[in-house]
Amino acid sequence: MSKKIVIVGGVAAGPKAACRLKRLQPSWDITVVDQDSLISYGGCGIPYYVSGDVAEETALRSTSFHAVRDEAFFENAKGVTVLTRTKALSIDRKAKKLKVENLQTGAQSELNYDKLLLATGSKPFVLPIPGADLDGVFTIADLHKAIEIKRRIAGGKVGKVVVIGGGAIGIEMAEAFTDLWGIETALIEFMPQLLPRIVDAEFAAMLKKHLIDKNVAVYLSEGASEILGNSEGKAIAVKTPQRTLEADLVIMAAGVRPRNELAKEAGLAIASGFGGIVVNSRMQTSDPDIYAAGDCIATRHLVTGKQAFAPLGSLANREGRVAADNMAGYATTFDGVVGSFIMKAFERCIAATGISYETAVAEGFDADYSLTAPADRAHFFPNTAAVILQMVFDKRTRRVLGLQAFGAMNDSISARIDAAAVLISKGAVIEDFSMAEMAYAPPFSSAIDSLNAAAFVADNICAGLLRKVGVARFLAWMEDFNREPDWLALDIRHAKDAAILVEKFGNEKWLSVPYPEVRARLAEIPADKTLIILCDAGTRSYEVQVFLDHAGKRNSLVLSGGFNVLRRIGAGWLGK
Amino acid sequence: MSKKIVIVGGVAAGPKAACRLKRLQPSWDITVVDQDSLISYGGCGIPYYVSGDVAEETALRSTSFHAVRDEAFFENAKGVTVLTRTKALSIDRKAKKLKVENLQTGAQSELNYDKLLLATGSKPFVLPIPGADLDGVFTIADLHKAIEIKRRIAGGKVGKVVVIGGGAIGIEMAEAFTDLWGIETALIEFMPQLLPRIVDAEFAAMLKKHLIDKNVAVYLSEGASEILGNSEGKAIAVKTPQRTLEADLVIMAAGVRPRNELAKEAGLAIASGFGGIVVNSRMQTSDPDIYAAGDCIATRHLVTGKQAFAPLGSLANREGRVAADNMAGYATTFDGVVGSFIMKAFERCIAATGISYETAVAEGFDADYSLTAPADRAHFFPNTAAVILQMVFDKRTRRVLGLQAFGAMNDSISARIDAAAVLISKGAVIEDFSMAEMAYAPPFSSAIDSLNAAAFVADNICAGLLRKVGVARFLAWMEDFNREPDWLALDIRHAKDAAILVEKFGNEKWLSVPYPEVRARLAEIPADKTLIILCDAGTRSYEVQVFLDHAGKRNSLVLSGGFNVLRRIGAGWLGK
Repeated sequence: MSKKIVIVGGVAAGPKAACRLKRLQPSWDITVVDQDSLISYGGCGIPYYVSGDVAEETALRSTSFHAVRDEAFFENAKGVTVLTRTKALSIDRKAKKLKVENLQTGAQSELNYDKLLLATGSKPFVLPIPGADLDGVFTIADLHKAIEIKRRIAGGKVGKVVVIGGGAIGIEMAEAFTDLWGIETALIEFMPQLLPRIVDAEFAAMLKKHLIDKNVAVYLSEGASEILGNSEGKAIAVKTPQRTLEADLVIMAAGVRPRNELAKEAGLAIASGFGGIVVNSRMQTSDPDIYAAGDCIATRHLVTGKQAFAPLGSLANREGRVAADNMAGYATTFDGVVGSFIMKAFERCIAATGISYETAVAEGFDADYSLTAPADRAHFFPNTAAVILQMVFDKRTRRVLGLQAFGAMNDSISARIDAAAVLISKGAVIEDFSMAEMAYAPPFSSAIDSLNAAAFVADNICAGLLRKVGVARFLAWMEDFNREPDWLALDIRHAKDAAILVEKFGNEKWLSVPYPEVRARLAEIPADKTLIILCDAGTRSYEVQVFLDHAGKRNSLVLSGGFNVLRRIGAGWLGK
Repeated sequence: MSKKIVIVGGVAAGPKAACRLKRLQPSWDITVVDQDSLISYGGCGIPYYVSGDVAEETALRSTSFHAVRDEAFFENAKGVTVLTRTKALSIDRKAKKLKVENLQTGAQSELNYDKLLLATGSKPFVLPIPGADLDGVFTIADLHKAIEIKRRIAGGKVGKVVVIGGGAIGIEMAEAFTDLWGIETALIEFMPQLLPRIVDAEFAAMLKKHLIDKNVAVYLSEGASEILGNSEGKAIAVKTPQRTLEADLVIMAAGVRPRNELAKEAGLAIASGFGGIVVNSRMQTSDPDIYAAGDCIATRHLVTGKQAFAPLGSLANREGRVAADNMAGYATTFDGVVGSFIMKAFERCIAATGISYETAVAEGFDADYSLTAPADRAHFFPNTAAVILQMVFDKRTRRVLGLQAFGAMNDSISARIDAAAVLISKGAVIEDFSMAEMAYAPPFSSAIDSLNAAAFVADNICAGLLRKVGVARFLAWMEDFNREPDWLALDIRHAKDAAILVEKFGNEKWLSVPYPEVRARLAEIPADKTLIILCDAGTRSYEVQVFLDHAGKRNSLVLSGGFNVLRRIGAGWLGK
């Protein structure tokens, strides 16, 4: 028996669900409504369209075989009706009708449904500050805005941009402006770090340095208090409590919120706090005939067990598929997310899955972390680069809670993050990571894969074999030796690398004993100070710590990640 | 209480175990013996040393901080004694003594042990054919051989090379000779495909075409019957039943065998068949005081449950660590392998994990596979390439048994293979792959990740929604239409792409109806023939099959992977 399905939203989850449903139930009547004229596009590609990496906006809404996904395409190729420029006004749950308005004509009508899917997506958060509505202030809300931004840039009228918001979209937009168009770009973030709640401070600091190296001005702990305009109503600057930044264009990338108005008015259950539509694992809302999928829902975080907001195109597609399956009577489930995240930032890749150390502590885990700096492939292979990995785990249960990575812009980080994500989603413990069978050949990995190595270090920490000092605490000491008066840096790198620091700080604070000489020169190493052992990656420091412990000098701490991390964060005393 | 540990073998598992053990038990006395003078090297890097990618052999036996790992390094930095040029002759298990010979002096002596570790590795299989001992015939056995091969090439004396064996090492060596040195290289393989038992025939065929495109002559189903020499005892040609191939250098890469003589003579349990030393998951042999790790052991295949031989540097390192842990009284386990494999071949990457379809059938699984050709990142992103993925699964249990991949030479395949490997090792089913949370951003993946997509197709096959034809069967039909007289190719690509084949074969065998026109032109599609639906990747073909089924034309088969696979395998009728 044929059924009528109505889907609200035509960007990601909606079209995906519509097409899957039509394949599962070819005789059903499926209608998608969207208030926009442009549908079924890759919103995540907008920064690459603005940068010029993607030449035409149509590429973002075409199939891989260059067919534009418009109404005619859905009608002819998919057998799905799409009504664009059609706004969903309200749901009559009792009568199972959706009231809609044709935005072109203003005419209102009703669509009957057997099952309704809400794929209403998210909307950018607009800061409630003066000037937010000036000409030249853009959110990254839809393709129209992206087209207009690119039009203005390509017209040569944009010399300076201020991006408000240091999340993924803000950073990607900053790269697009700086890298491809040479625009003077400033990025301001209200929180004290980039990518807040996604990565830990050290990773955000490495990313920040890279952005600065690439000529993006980055201001942290600075909120925009006002956008200033000229007499023509055009934005000309962004004010923060600390400064005024000139701007021909302002990008407001301060996060997104679920579009939940329709659901809320219809009395469906809504998650408190961020406001996602509550669904079960089969994507059903509190009304069994209404489903929801995509950026508008509340999903479950598989590590914390809490409700989570995870607006991402990849999840929207999978949620849309599960919604379609269940509407068609084919029971599949979407059980939640571990929060996998990856982004390109100029010549670097930064990624995370699970939760950060900061979050793990806040969530009450008995949290600790291993911070390592292995090579991204066999160290003897050409063009090998160090990758910085942080594995977060619970010391009591040994469960791995998260992984963060920062490295060169290639896919090697994907491999570690993706393997970690599937393990974390299964509740895996450190041993599962120690023994993860990563495919090995020198062009792709080290014989001891970086993921295995991170777990080995985590295991050593749990076993009490490795005692470490955090990067932040070490850097604070370097700013003021009086903070930890009994500390002494034991630099076990090659003597020539250590020499400049020994000269700068003196043997009292900076002692050089190269790694292969430690056993022979044990007597030179003081027993009455807390030794901070430093090398390039932290591995040799750990070996030296074990040796010193055995020799009775049990007062050392390893600087995790070593100079590989320090150099990527940067500090005046390090020199260039 | 200090213990004496003796380790036989100083390449991978041995040194790894020695160093780990020294860290766990710093007061123990650890001695490694090796008959070679060069130790602790990355044997997997030999092809890259020969090619010149790695300039010096010392790079293969140095740390990432450029310290050469020789006897002095192990003594000074690690506190481990290494006796090189020392051959282990026999084990006196009762007295717990290892008899050794100093190969320099001929002097024999005995080493007492509390625990003994056998890390004797593997040895190349030397074909029992005439001429195998001629000058210029090399196995890739150790660094000395690699140094000599490179010396001869660099001396300009090598114009032609024959490589015997189409496994990973043979192919890597063929690339090294051809790509960097411009040597005329022929590769012969006794079996009818490259990488036998590792990948299925279609994947081997794609690899073969790429090797041929890169000027490697490839001869399959041809065994070397004799190596011919000149009057000076130098190899000059390789004979097969079909031809004689000139050669200034012959590489014998016909696989490796465990070095098990010492264990065998000592009466330790040995796996029947390939002869690996039998160990439990804590790497203990049948003598509880003797451990074994690395290429010399028999491990367990986690998919088949059978004993397996898995000689790989990455596994050797992890096995060595587990052996050390357990010798130190720290219980960890190495539970087995899923057989992850990856290699670079010129501009391509080929990889596999788990078991192939052919193996799955032979093992008695209710096996099937999905063959897909998704993009390796968002299709609108610059430099996107298709990757060919094959997911092998059991239809009854829905367990995923394996994954194979062939694509461009970057790390994107690592991500899918590594995520698959950890899932397969956990006994994951298709749904686990459908919902694997691969980190998404356009520079790294598609919104629907290729791994998810492969699982979606597998799910559709299990649900009976997708009926497919294998590539081999289709190619056979293209050679002789009489094999399947009622078949008709339904080419749903753009009309311009199909035109040349319609012209060549006529509408009776090759019908062009572009994908967006199928619904409108349904009447043109015959109902009395078996339609073989073809597109670029197989995705649109599936949609058309669903539509035709619904329209009552239920006699179609989808060509999995479509032209993306066909073009990579190549065929005369395809042109170019």
